[in-house]
Amino acid sequence: MQKRNATAAVIGAGDYIGAEIAKRFAAEGFTVFAGRRDGARLEPLVREIEASGGSIVARALDARKEEEITAFLNDADKHAPLEVCIFNIGANVNFVNFPILETTERVFRKVWEMACYSGFLAGRESARLMVPRGKGNIFFTGATASLRGGSGYAAFASAKFGLRAVAQSMARELGPKNIHVAHLIIDSGVDTAWVRERREKLWGKEALDNPDLLMPPAAVAASYWQLYQQPRSAWTFELEIRPFGEKW
Amino acid sequence: MQKRNATAAVIGAGDYIGAEIAKRFAAEGFTVFAGRRDGARLEPLVREIEASGGSIVARALDARKEEEITAFLNDADKHAPLEVCIFNIGANVNFVNFPILETTERVFRKVWEMACYSGFLAGRESARLMVPRGKGNIFFTGATASLRGGSGYAAFASAKFGLRAVAQSMARELGPKNIHVAHLIIDSGVDTAWVRERREKLWGKEALDNPDLLMPPAAVAASYWQLYQQPRSAWTFELEIRPFGEKW
Amino acid sequence: MQKRNATAAVIGAGDYIGAEIAKRFAAEGFTVFAGRRDGARLEPLVREIEASGGSIVARALDARKEEEITAFLNDADKHAPLEVCIFNIGANVNFVNFPILETTERVFRKVWEMACYSGFLAGRESARLMVPRGKGNIFFTGATASLRGGSGYAAFASAKFGLRAVAQSMARELGPKNIHVAHLIIDSGVDTAWVRERREKLWGKEALDNPDLLMPPAAVAASYWQLYQQPRSAWTFELEIRPFGEKW
Amino acid sequence: MQKRNATAAVIGAGDYIGAEIAKRFAAEGFTVFAGRRDGARLEPLVREIEASGGSIVARALDARKEEEITAFLNDADKHAPLEVCIFNIGANVNFVNFPILETTERVFRKVWEMACYSGFLAGRESARLMVPRGKGNIFFTGATASLRGGSGYAAFASAKFGLRAVAQSMARELGPKNIHVAHLIIDSGVDTAWVRERREKLWGKEALDNPDLLMPPAAVAASYWQLYQQPRSAWTFELEIRPFGEKW
Repeated sequence: MQKRNATAAVIGAGDYIGAEIAKRFAAEGFTVFAGRRDGARLEPLVREIEASGGSIVARALDARKEEEITAFLNDADKHAPLEVCIFNIGANVNFVNFPILETTERVFRKVWEMACYSGFLAGRESARLMVPRGKGNIFFTGATASLRGGSGYAAFASAKFGLRAVAQSMARELGPKNIHVAHLIIDSGVDTAWVRERREKLWGKEALDNPDLLMPPAAVAASYWQLYQQPRSAWTFELEIRPFGEKW
Repeated sequence: MQKRNATAAVIGAGDYIGAEIAKRFAAEGFTVFAGRRDGARLEPLVREIEASGGSIVARALDARKEEEITAFLNDADKHAPLEVCIFNIGANVNFVNFPILETTERVFRKVWEMACYSGFLAGRESARLMVPRGKGNIFFTGATASLRGGSGYAAFASAKFGLRAVAQSMARELGPKNIHVAHLIIDSGVDTAWVRERREKLWGKEALDNPDLLMPPAAVAASYWQLYQQPRSAWTFELEIRPFGEKW
Repeated sequence: MQKRNATAAVIGAGDYIGAEIAKRFAAEGFTVFAGRRDGARLEPLVREIEASGGSIVARALDARKEEEITAFLNDADKHAPLEVCIFNIGANVNFVNFPILETTERVFRKVWEMACYSGFLAGRESARLMVPRGKGNIFFTGATASLRGGSGYAAFASAKFGLRAVAQSMARELGPKNIHVAHLIIDSGVDTAWVRERREKLWGKEALDNPDLLMPPAAVAASYWQLYQQPRSAWTFELEIRPFGEKW
Repeated sequence: MQKRNATAAVIGAGDYIGAEIAKRFAAEGFTVFAGRRDGARLEPLVREIEASGGSIVARALDARKEEEITAFLNDADKHAPLEVCIFNIGANVNFVNFPILETTERVFRKVWEMACYSGFLAGRESARLMVPRGKGNIFFTGATASLRGGSGYAAFASAKFGLRAVAQSMARELGPKNIHVAHLIIDSGVDTAWVRERREKLWGKEALDNPDLLMPPAAVAASYWQLYQQPRSAWTFELEIRPFGEKW
């Protein structure tokens, strides 16, 4: 592995998608700055990346706090120029379906703070570091609910629609400044313990028979790597991915 | 005018669109409950509606406060069954264009609270009153920014995208319960003093020469009336309107 | 009924939607020019409209023949100024689902000629008559397949997508010339004998239990009437309608 | 270069995009079957690919003729299993802007036959060869006009919308059969002599100053290569690309 003098920040470096993204960018030579709420849970990821010869700095990070986001990204950038920021919070959870009358204002606000507001902060603070340098990549993880407000998903879809708007506005403003802003839409369930459990509960064991209907976290990481590799003459803003057997 | 035993709530009964909606529904016999932040500014509207023989109850209303929204709609419903709720905040202002780096977290949050969060509250509280009765109409005002995150509009588009998701989720859940949820997209500038001023400033006096390029507030009110009149066998969720000369 | 000095052409005046549109515009005082392939089958419609005091001219019309379309619309315009043209072919039939490998080039071409090419001819020839006069209305009937290429619908969706593009291009070009071009998307089955039969066959008798899940043809006609009534300061290009109980 | 026992068909192997796609897949070891109307004009491409050690079979092909498409793809498949078919006709030409009244039925039909009907034939005939084998890739080149019917583009947009519907229907039907169907939207001008000439004519020499606003044909080829490399657990149906400086 050839080390790069560059950092990739992964905000929302959870057990599945986020961890795979971190591993992929570490494997490509970036120093990864990985943040998640409960920093202690990043330990296995750190061990795995370091065992493969990769570099990672793990941090507890509450992405809803402006000063924490700013500090996290500044620290990354001090370590080595911040070249990539991937915002990945609230990506692999389609939350529980809430009828509108049971959606409390507390839930509505909290989902927005986690999945939209913190994305705005991460995007803006990355841009602040990247614009003067005239290059960079800011990627956001979206979901089916980024495009469709399904029954029972008012809170989650509202936050994901809102995040998509942030990404789109930033892409239009920052593209001409040589910063690639992209929005990856994962149009399927992701293969995590949580999703497996829930599918089994809803539809029985057979729902798990076909592994090809769930998106492996490593495939998401590979999609981000494809976005990163695009030349600036042919950038994609929105990349939608789904497993071959998914109904859409 | 034949009076109806029904109320129509207009949340965001500002000087232009909101006022015209209030006048239209009052003219059709509804008792209108009109709310806006500065209740005193509703006086001319009250005088105008009452002079035409209509009924209106005007209230100061901070729509970002759950308890105020709940009380406002409950009061309307006690007066006479709430048949229509129109959420109209942040509709006729395309806000000032903010580069992403100048968009403070305070602005981002405030725009969301005004244009999305308060819409969720208004929608949910209307639904709470309408669902047991098995009928009702909940309408939301959208804008070009509901569908497009333009450069410089991260905060506004994020809130408007988010509101659209709320409307869509509610429409899918509540349609089968006989509640018509609709989202009206005004894809043009609205003819208000504020917009005229801004256009003149940006593009000179000629920008005002063609009145057909601005949407008259009364035409918005007429569009809402069209939505209200649709039979349940042919409901529209999203109605996009623009003046004939608008470029799109 | 007050007669107007104006004609409304209905191309594809079939037994259901087209007939209801014809009746509605006749009832509003237009002389209706109704065309369908088998002109003899227009007789009951003629009798019904004339019995109500309306005016109708019925014609056999193969809308895939340029010279027939031109003559039909010219004749309407000679009778009285052509104010409305509604293109309605292939609207209420979702055709039979064809796997791609069984879609012959003959079917693909024929569906396109009926549902797209003839719509282009009707739109262009109407425009030719309306542009010099500086007013008019050109409406096209779309379907779910106008927006979604479902499995098994390559031919039908391709034609309906293509028709939508024609409508959109014409709307952008002709709007500023005071011609209202609109595209009505019927996002549900329409209540016709053919659809009822097919549903019963596919899903059994219960599929017919809930009449609220099928769109009554008269509701489509009412939607066209709403489009016609819009002031030019607030035109809708695309109007999507569905019954309240429809899943979407 | 490691040769593969597989063919890649490029239908519409014109001077720019098509030629670059052919070169890319040849460089990756495929035997390329290249077809274009005027087969003689494929000679320089053949020389270039063969000089680099690649394999190519060049053919005159009128893609609007079912029997020619069938024969072309069958021949490719006999040479070695057809693994990729890329339909690329009418991709790099945004045709000349035609006001609707000047769009003859001949132009409308011809554009459709070239850009939509022949795509349907190519897609279906590829599927016929790939389905029994349980694998394959069928890619279609789209343009801005695949999503937007601009003023003056009724014929071109209608054909491109129609092609997109074919691609979408095929993707939904064939995805579960392990065939990757994708639609690449090039949302910008492509850097060709023809486009440069036209830009200069319309906007003067300065319109050519910034090469970053035109898509290099090789970047399109690279995007197709990215699509080809996606694992089936994370397929993209629609990939939209534009140069970093493009306004959208």
